[in-house]
Amino acid sequence: MHPLFTKHENLLQQALAAIETRGYWSPFSETPSPKVYGETASAEGEATFSAHLNKTFALDQPSNGQLASEEVSPFGFALGIRYPEATPAALISAATKAHDDWRAAGPEAWIGISLEILARINRASFEIGHSVMHTTGQPFMMAFQAGGPHAQDRALEAIAYAWDQLRRIPAESHWEKPQGKNPPLAMHKRYTITPRGIGLVLGCCTFPTWNGYPGIFADLATGNAVIVKPHPKAILPLAITVRIAREVLRESGLDPNVITLLATQSNDGEIVQDLALRPEIRLIDFTGSTRNGTWLERHAHQAQVFTEKAGVNQIVIDSVDDIKAVARNVAFSLALYSGQMCTAPQNIYIPRDGISTSEGTLSFNSVAQSIIDALQKLVADPVRAVELLGAIQNESVTQRIKQARALGRVWLDSQPLQHPAFPEARIHTPLVLQLDATHDYVQFTQEWFGPISFLIATDATAQSLDLAGTIAAEHGALTLSVYSTDNTIIHAAEEASLRGGVALSINLTGGVFVNQSAAFSDFHGTGANPAANSALTDAAFVSRRFHVIQSRVHVAPQSADGEVGQTVSAIRLNS
Amino acid sequence: MHPLFTKHENLLQQALAAIETRGYWSPFSETPSPKVYGETASAEGEATFSAHLNKTFALDQPSNGQLASEEVSPFGFALGIRYPEATPAALISAATKAHDDWRAAGPEAWIGISLEILARINRASFEIGHSVMHTTGQPFMMAFQAGGPHAQDRALEAIAYAWDQLRRIPAESHWEKPQGKNPPLAMHKRYTITPRGIGLVLGCCTFPTWNGYPGIFADLATGNAVIVKPHPKAILPLAITVRIAREVLRESGLDPNVITLLATQSNDGEIVQDLALRPEIRLIDFTGSTRNGTWLERHAHQAQVFTEKAGVNQIVIDSVDDIKAVARNVAFSLALYSGQMCTAPQNIYIPRDGISTSEGTLSFNSVAQSIIDALQKLVADPVRAVELLGAIQNESVTQRIKQARALGRVWLDSQPLQHPAFPEARIHTPLVLQLDATHDYVQFTQEWFGPISFLIATDATAQSLDLAGTIAAEHGALTLSVYSTDNTIIHAAEEASLRGGVALSINLTGGVFVNQSAAFSDFHGTGANPAANSALTDAAFVSRRFHVIQSRVHVAPQSADGEVGQTVSAIRLNS
Repeated sequence: MHPLFTKHENLLQQALAAIETRGYWSPFSETPSPKVYGETASAEGEATFSAHLNKTFALDQPSNGQLASEEVSPFGFALGIRYPEATPAALISAATKAHDDWRAAGPEAWIGISLEILARINRASFEIGHSVMHTTGQPFMMAFQAGGPHAQDRALEAIAYAWDQLRRIPAESHWEKPQGKNPPLAMHKRYTITPRGIGLVLGCCTFPTWNGYPGIFADLATGNAVIVKPHPKAILPLAITVRIAREVLRESGLDPNVITLLATQSNDGEIVQDLALRPEIRLIDFTGSTRNGTWLERHAHQAQVFTEKAGVNQIVIDSVDDIKAVARNVAFSLALYSGQMCTAPQNIYIPRDGISTSEGTLSFNSVAQSIIDALQKLVADPVRAVELLGAIQNESVTQRIKQARALGRVWLDSQPLQHPAFPEARIHTPLVLQLDATHDYVQFTQEWFGPISFLIATDATAQSLDLAGTIAAEHGALTLSVYSTDNTIIHAAEEASLRGGVALSINLTGGVFVNQSAAFSDFHGTGANPAANSALTDAAFVSRRFHVIQSRVHVAPQSADGEVGQTVSAIRLNS
Repeated sequence: MHPLFTKHENLLQQALAAIETRGYWSPFSETPSPKVYGETASAEGEATFSAHLNKTFALDQPSNGQLASEEVSPFGFALGIRYPEATPAALISAATKAHDDWRAAGPEAWIGISLEILARINRASFEIGHSVMHTTGQPFMMAFQAGGPHAQDRALEAIAYAWDQLRRIPAESHWEKPQGKNPPLAMHKRYTITPRGIGLVLGCCTFPTWNGYPGIFADLATGNAVIVKPHPKAILPLAITVRIAREVLRESGLDPNVITLLATQSNDGEIVQDLALRPEIRLIDFTGSTRNGTWLERHAHQAQVFTEKAGVNQIVIDSVDDIKAVARNVAFSLALYSGQMCTAPQNIYIPRDGISTSEGTLSFNSVAQSIIDALQKLVADPVRAVELLGAIQNESVTQRIKQARALGRVWLDSQPLQHPAFPEARIHTPLVLQLDATHDYVQFTQEWFGPISFLIATDATAQSLDLAGTIAAEHGALTLSVYSTDNTIIHAAEEASLRGGVALSINLTGGVFVNQSAAFSDFHGTGANPAANSALTDAAFVSRRFHVIQSRVHVAPQSADGEVGQTVSAIRLNS
C-alpha cells in the first residue's frame, strides 16, 4: 500500500460514501476562517499572491526560454507575472518519459499522490483565492470559495469516482473451468490498469480551478500524465496548482513532468490545435466556447474529449406564493459574478398575461418590475455590490452588453460601477431586457455570456416549458429553474428537464441559487445536451481514462480432479 | 420492484459477483446436452430452424412491404428466408414512440426484461445454433456454443455491468448544509436515469450474436431503444433474437418497437450511413471492417460509437519445453473456424536462428515444420476436419487465400475439402506462408482475414516482441500469445502487451486457445489499440449509455436548527 494512500484513505472512504448517498458533504471548509486555516493564513496567502506579481514564476520544467505574460486583473492592474513558455513537443517528450514510472506506480500511488496534492492545494486556498480573484474578476469571497474549497471538492469527487472504478478491477484472478471427468482447466490471470497516456486540460478564464480540477485529477488518479494549458489570461491559479503537484511528485521519487504547465499568449489557437491532434494526447478536458469545443470533438479522434461549452440557462415563472422571495433569489442569481457563471440564468419566461400568486394575479410587468427592484436593491450600494458582482473578466463581455442593449425593451440598463478599493476595476451592473417568445427566438436561443438576461413574454407556461425543454436540448443548458405552486406544472417541468437533459431546480426562494452546484451531490452538466458531453463527475467521466490489459497463464487446478462440474462428452471448441 | 427483476435477481447477483472476482462462471450450459436443454431440444431446435427456410420471417413491426433475402449457407444452400424490410425513418419513428414508456419504466424494468429476454434466448439455443452455423459457416458445435451460451454470457455480462453502474446512483437524496447559528439549508433531490435515446447495432457475418449481444443488451439494460441491423448475409440469428425480445416486451405491456430489425440487402451502405448520422441515433455498436468502423467514429458525432475493427493477432515463439504441445495448440488456433475469428492468430514470429527447447536448439524450419505437421494432422481426415474448420463465410475470403499465396514461401497450401454432409460447402484448409520480419513488413501488418497465417523469421525474440508491441499499437490486435521458458522474456512480453494494449496469453499448450475469450473473466478487446475502441464488457462500455438528470427542491431540515455545523459569519456566495 502506498504511504500516501494510507495517509488519506479515511478521507477517500468518506468521499466514496458521499458520492453514494449524495447528501451534503465537504472536507474542505468554505469559510476563510482563521480557526480552520490558521491565524496567519489569510495574510500569508495574500502576501504570497502579491509576491508573484511582476516576477518570473519559477517552474523547473522544460522551457524554450521565452516568457508568457499578459494577465491583467479585471480589478484594474496588470499582474506582470512572466511564465516560462515551452514548446508542446518538449512537454510531450517530457511527459512521455515521466509517464513510464508513473504508469508503473499503480492505482494506489495515483490515488494517494493525487490526494496529497489536493491536501496541499487546500493549504494554499488563500493564495489561490487571490489568484482566482485577480484573473477571473470574481469577488474575493467567491474566488476563495469557488476557486478554493469548492474546486477542491470537485477534484476529490473526481478522485473518488476514479477509485470507485479502479477498485472494481481485481489485480488477479484464478479461473478454473470444470472439464467433466478430466482435470479442470485452470489459469492465473493478471489485470493491469493502464492509463491512456497524456491528458491535455484546457482551462477557462472564469473558473480556472473549479472547471480545470476535475479533468486534471481524473487524469492523475487514473495514472495519466497531464499537460495543463490555462487560458492566457488566467494562468496563475493553475500555475500554482501545477507547482504544488510537481513538488508532491518529486518528493514521492517520481519525475515531476507527470504534470506540466503550457503557458501561452492569447494568439495560441494554432499551438493548441496542433497539440490537441498529437497522437500522444489521449485525453482532452475542455471548458470554453462551443466553437472550440465542437472543433475538438470533431477533430481530436485520437483522444477521449470531454467538453463543457456554451448553453442557455432558463427560468420558468408560472405561479408563486411570494413574488418578493422569488425576485430576490432570481436577482441574486443574475447578479452573482455578473452572470459570468456557466450556470447563470439568461432567459426568464413569464406569461404575457401574468401569473397567479397567493394575492391574486400579477401582471407580466409587475413580475418584471419585482425582479428589477430586487436587482436594483442588490446593486444600489457600490461597496456591497462589488462583493457580489465582481468585475467583468474581459472587454468582450463589456462589448456584448453594448450590443445586447439593442435587442429589446430595456428594463434595467447596465451601469459602470466604481470599486471602492480598485478604481480601475471593470465593473458593470446587470442589463435586463424584455423579449418576445416568438419574435425574438433567434436572439434568446444564443448564449449572451455576461450580465445580460431576458424577460421573455410567453403565451402561457405551456409555451415556456416547451421552449425550456427544446432550447436545452438543441442549444444546451446547465441549469433550469421553475417557479410554480401547481404540482401539474412541476411535473411538466420535470418532463421538460428530462427532454432537455438539464438539471432542474424547483421554487428556489431561500439560500440556494440555481447557479450553485454542490460537489458530491449535484451532477454538474449531464452530457445529455450540447452544453457538455459529460457530467462532472460521474463514472463515464473517469472510466474512459484507462484500460485493462490482462495476461493469463496455466496453473495447477485448485479443486480436486474430476470432482467438480458436470459430465461432458462434447468436444469444446470455444471457452 | 419489477416482477422480472425479482425473478432474475439471484442470477444478477451471481453475475455481479463474477465480474468482481473474474473467475470461471457461466449460468448457460455450453454442452448441448439433453440433460440440460431437455430431451427434445436438439431435434426441435433443428426443426424450428428448418421451418424458417424458404419462408417469410414473421415480424410484426413497421415494414415497407419489400422483402430482403440473400442469405446463403456457407455449407452450400440458399436459406431462402425473406425478411420484411423497413425504411430507417419508419423504424426511428416507431422506436421514438415506443421509447417514451420504456424510458419511464426505469432501471429495474430494463434489467428485469433484459434478463427475461436472455432466459428465453437460452431456450432457443439450438435454433440459434443452427442459424449461426448456416449464416456464418461455423461448425455446429462452435455455432451452438459461441452463438448460443457464450453469446448469452456476454449479454449477461453487459447487463451486469449496466446494473453495477445504475445501482450506484441513488434515486433520491437529502442534502442538508449547516448554516452555523441559522437553520440549515435542506433540499430533497431526485436523480432520474435517462437513456441516451436510440441505439443502432450493426452486426457482423461471422459472430452475429456473440458480437451483437453486448451492444444490444447494454442498450436495453440502460433503457435505450435499439435498431438491430444484421449483416445482410447473417440476418437469421438476430431476427430470432429480436422476435424473442419483442415477445417479452409485449407481454410486459410495452410497445415492442423498443427493439426492431432492419433487414437489408448487400447494397445497404448508403442506408446505413444515412441512418448512422440521424440525430435520433445516440449509440452505435459496430463490428466489422476498419474502413466502416473508422468512418462511423469520425462522422457519427451525435452518437457514442463503440467499434470492433480489424487487427493483427500475433504469436511470439521464443523457447519451449515441448514443441509438439506448442504446435498442437497453435495449429488448433489456426484451424478453428478457418481463422475467421477476430481473435485468430495471423503472425507467428520465430527467430531465424531457431529456438531453444528442453532437447536443445530447434531450427526455424523445424519449428515451422512442427506447426505444419500439427495442422496437417488436424485436417487430414475431412470428416473430423470440417467439425473444426467449418466453412468459409464468403467468397472474398476464398479470393484472399488465392491472393495470399503469392506473398512468400508456401509451407502449407490451402486445399478445398469435401464436407461429408454438405457437398456444396465452401471449405478450404489453412494456408501457411513464410515471411521475413524486415522485407515483408508491409504485408504482415495488414489483417489477412481467413485461414491465412505467416511464419515470420526474425533476428531474435527481441525483434519479435518489438514487432508485436508496435503492430498491436499501430494496427490493432485482440490477442497476443507468447511461448517462452525464460521469465525475462515473459516479462518483456508483458511489457510489449502493455505497450500494444493487447491481452497476453502465456505458454498455452493445453485446452485453452488464444482465440478464446471467456465472459466474466477475460476482457475482450481493450480499447487501447486500433482493433477496438472499447472492451467487451467493462464500465466504460455501459456508463456512456445513460445520463442522470436531477431535480432539487427545498424541504424542512431533518436536524435540529442551530445544533449542527460550525459557526459561520461569512456571506456564502456559492454552495
